[in-house]
Parts: sequence; C-alpha cells; structure tokens
Amino acid sequence: MSERPIGIFDSGVGGLTVLRALRKKLPSEDLIYFGDTARVPYGTKSPKTIIRYSIENTKLLKRFNVKMVIVACNTSSSYALEILKSEFSDVPILGVINPGARLAVSATKSGKVGVIGTEATIKSGAYRKAIHFINPSCLVFEKVCPLFVPLIEEGWLNDPVTLEVARRYVLPLLGKGIDTLVLGCTHYPLIKDILLKICKNVTLIDSAQAIADEVAKALPSKKESGKGNVKILVSDKTDRFEKIAKMIMGNKIEIEEVSIDKE
Amino acid sequence: MSERPIGIFDSGVGGLTVLRALRKKLPSEDLIYFGDTARVPYGTKSPKTIIRYSIENTKLLKRFNVKMVIVACNTSSSYALEILKSEFSDVPILGVINPGARLAVSATKSGKVGVIGTEATIKSGAYRKAIHFINPSCLVFEKVCPLFVPLIEEGWLNDPVTLEVARRYVLPLLGKGIDTLVLGCTHYPLIKDILLKICKNVTLIDSAQAIADEVAKALPSKKESGKGNVKILVSDKTDRFEKIAKMIMGNKIEIEEVSIDKE
Repeated sequence: MSERPIGIFDSGVGGLTVLRALRKKLPSEDLIYFGDTARVPYGTKSPKTIIRYSIENTKLLKRFNVKMVIVACNTSSSYALEILKSEFSDVPILGVINPGARLAVSATKSGKVGVIGTEATIKSGAYRKAIHFINPSCLVFEKVCPLFVPLIEEGWLNDPVTLEVARRYVLPLLGKGIDTLVLGCTHYPLIKDILLKICKNVTLIDSAQAIADEVAKALPSKKESGKGNVKILVSDKTDRFEKIAKMIMGNKIEIEEVSIDKE
Repeated sequence: MSERPIGIFDSGVGGLTVLRALRKKLPSEDLIYFGDTARVPYGTKSPKTIIRYSIENTKLLKRFNVKMVIVACNTSSSYALEILKSEFSDVPILGVINPGARLAVSATKSGKVGVIGTEATIKSGAYRKAIHFINPSCLVFEKVCPLFVPLIEEGWLNDPVTLEVARRYVLPLLGKGIDTLVLGCTHYPLIKDILLKICKNVTLIDSAQAIADEVAKALPSKKESGKGNVKILVSDKTDRFEKIAKMIMGNKIEIEEVSIDKE
C-alpha cells in the first residue's frame, strides 16, 4: 500500500471543506493541501488564466510525490480537469463536478436541479453538462452567486444580510420547482444553515462530501488505524486565511508558505 | 514638453475612477492604464505579495516609456510606494494616500477623520500615518469594509443590501463624531450616493479626485488642446472587467490583454 500523500488544491481557503471531509472519511491518509491565496479568487477570472494556474498548482503538488490530485476548486474543476488529466497522466486526478452531479441526479425526484456557484463555474456549464450526461431529461437551473464567498470570508455566516442575499439568489431557482440544489463552490457548505432556512424540502448537495465519498471508493482501504498527517500550504500567508482556516478545520492547524514560481 | 504617456496601475478595475478623474482634469495627456486582473484583489493579500506585484506592474508600465507612474490602488500605495520610488528612481511615482490625506486634513473642522478601505490598506495604517504627519492632533478612526468591492462589482450600487452593509460599516465611525470620511479604495466613489445617505454633514474625500488634482499641479500645462489617447491593459481579460469598466468609463473603451511575466 502506498504511503504517498493525497494532494488537494484550491484557489484559496474554501477547499478546506474538502480537506475536512477527506480527513473525516479517510483519517489514516496523509493529506497535503495547497491554497493559491496569492492569486485567489479564480471564480472571476478567464478560462485561460484558470487553466494556467491549475497546471502550476498540480506541478507544485507533484513535487510532494502525491499519489492522487484532488481539484477541490469548482472553478478549476470546471475548466481545467480534462487538461490536467492529459498533462499529468501518471497520477489520478479527480475533480468535484462529477461527484456532485452524480449525487444530485440520484437525489432529485422532480428531475429539476438547481446549481449555484461562482461566475466562472456557472458560465462553464460544467455541472449542467455533467448532470445531462448522466440523465439527459433532468432540467438544470443555474445561478451565479458572487457575494457568497466575500460574505463567508467576512464571517457573516448567520447574518440577516447573508440571508437577504441568499433569498435574492436562490428564490428564483425555487420558483422553477427544483427539489435539489448543488452547492457548486467549496465555500458554500459554510452557509448551509442559511440556505436550509430558504430551501425547505430541497436536498442540498455538498460537493466536498461527494468527492470524499468517491475518493474513499477509489482507494484501497488502509489497514493501519494510525492518524495521517495533514499539511497545509499557501502561496500567500495571511491572517485572513488563518482565521477562516481555523473556522473550518478547528484550531490545531499549521500553515506554511510556498512559492509557485519555483519548479 | 514630453509626449510620453502617464502610466496608472491598479489591482483591477477600481483604479479606472482615477483614470476617469485624470482624463477629465488633463484631457490632452496620453494615459495608459494597467489593471492586474489576473491577480486581483490585493486588499486581502500579504504586504510581501502586494510589493512584488506592484514592482512587476511598474516594470510593465515602464515598457511603455511612461513619464510618470500613478499607483491608483490604495493597497499598493499603502505598502509599496516608498519601495517603488527607490527601485525606480528615474521616473516620478505618485500614490493615492498622501493626496487623500492632505484633502482630508484641510476639510475637517472637528479634527476627527474617518477612513474606510480594504483589509490590507487599513491594516497598514497608511492614511492614519499620513494624516498625523500633516496634523498630529487629528483623530483618525478606521474601518475595514471587505464587502464594498464585491457589492460594487456585483453592480448593486443603489441597493438596500449595500445600504445595510454600509450602515453596519460606517455608523460606528459616525458615532465617533467624524466630519470627514476618506474613501480609501478606488471602488468606493461608485457608492457615493449610498454613503451620502448615511453620512449627512460629512465631507467625503475621493482619492481619485485628490490624485488627479495633484498630478495636474505636478505637470507643466500642455499647450495643445488635442485629445490624448487612453490605453487600457489588463493581465486577464474578462467580461466582468469590461462590464464594470464600461460602468465607470462609458461605452467607448478598448481593452487589451498583456502578460506580466514577459519583461
């Protein structure tokens, strides 16, 4: 059995919800996380730039001899996954879109699925395409939610302003009769409570959970019961990252800065 | 008289309020703007990264033989201005902090000045130091406003949510008795109307206006009455930039993508 770590990258702090889910599901695996905080966010950038950054991040993780790369960032998964798979054919690479789409299709009864995400993720149509690939008769309704990430990073998780913004974004989707809503950004599980207040009788699909389940299935189960190591790397170390990282991961974390330019 | 252009850089789109003010004040000057949209925003990043990006942006503008560099970004001005001045001693470099601070000190009667800005700008204390340098007896009250930029970029300029967020951020400053408020981020002039609703009897200091006035004083007046050229460069061309740029500059703009890596 391989003792190599699993690598995870994200544009910033949001992918820690994926790290947290993996940690819970696979406690004995070594995990190495890279957050590209020097260039965050990706969700407002162009496909070309998102692809370039994703390639650089994968190269960085490969320096640590990872046995698998998980693209925790929905925006990167939307644009760069196929390119990463062909550029780095010696290591399995998994994105968050397909696991989320599969879970959504199996959850919906009405056949009407909502997807919320960043500007770039929604514009890519990645979730819509993935859902239609599994079930072409599903109706998919999408909504860009650019204020969710800043509100979450401000820590306004259970705040009337966030509730009002969420109502503005999500009510039009509910009006279409959706019974399943994909949280198409790794930050969004942090405002699940707010979303549940608005989305009564709607199943929320957390892509962090979905990818953790798929990784667990893909890996041979470990015999050791020992606890794996978790390493968190960033391209820019800020108090802001640390504050939000602690909010997600709890207090016992160490963060190390690395340069993406060195290869 | 030099026919070389004036260079302006910003982390993204906000500095276009400075470009707009310069255009109005100095219509016959050639202006070249660079928005570092591939790495925007700067306001949440570390001083080291902000300095590195600011140096790279100045190098890029110097490739266009600029006669002056204006650091339109408050965050860059806060951390990188002195370093830029010593690294690039062959070209005058002006930031937005000092002009804004001077205008604030001359405007206040109560001697109580508020400053709003990004996380990095406020943390640097740059406005506080600049104001105290001019008048040590001024009392300066500061507030980080991380949601203003995303709200403005969402286009919610005259929206109840933006009003509520502004109340949350600004009312504590009003409670301190300020009579002058420095808009310490180039985006903020775009929500002047909202801020004026809350800040009755308070003078708003627009740093874009302040820097345009100082540049006009620093340059010899041009005899030609012809219209100067305006060139807008970005490190990542997105629909998002174009949409907001048109909101600021009007419809007649052309945007060109350049690489910051090439030197």
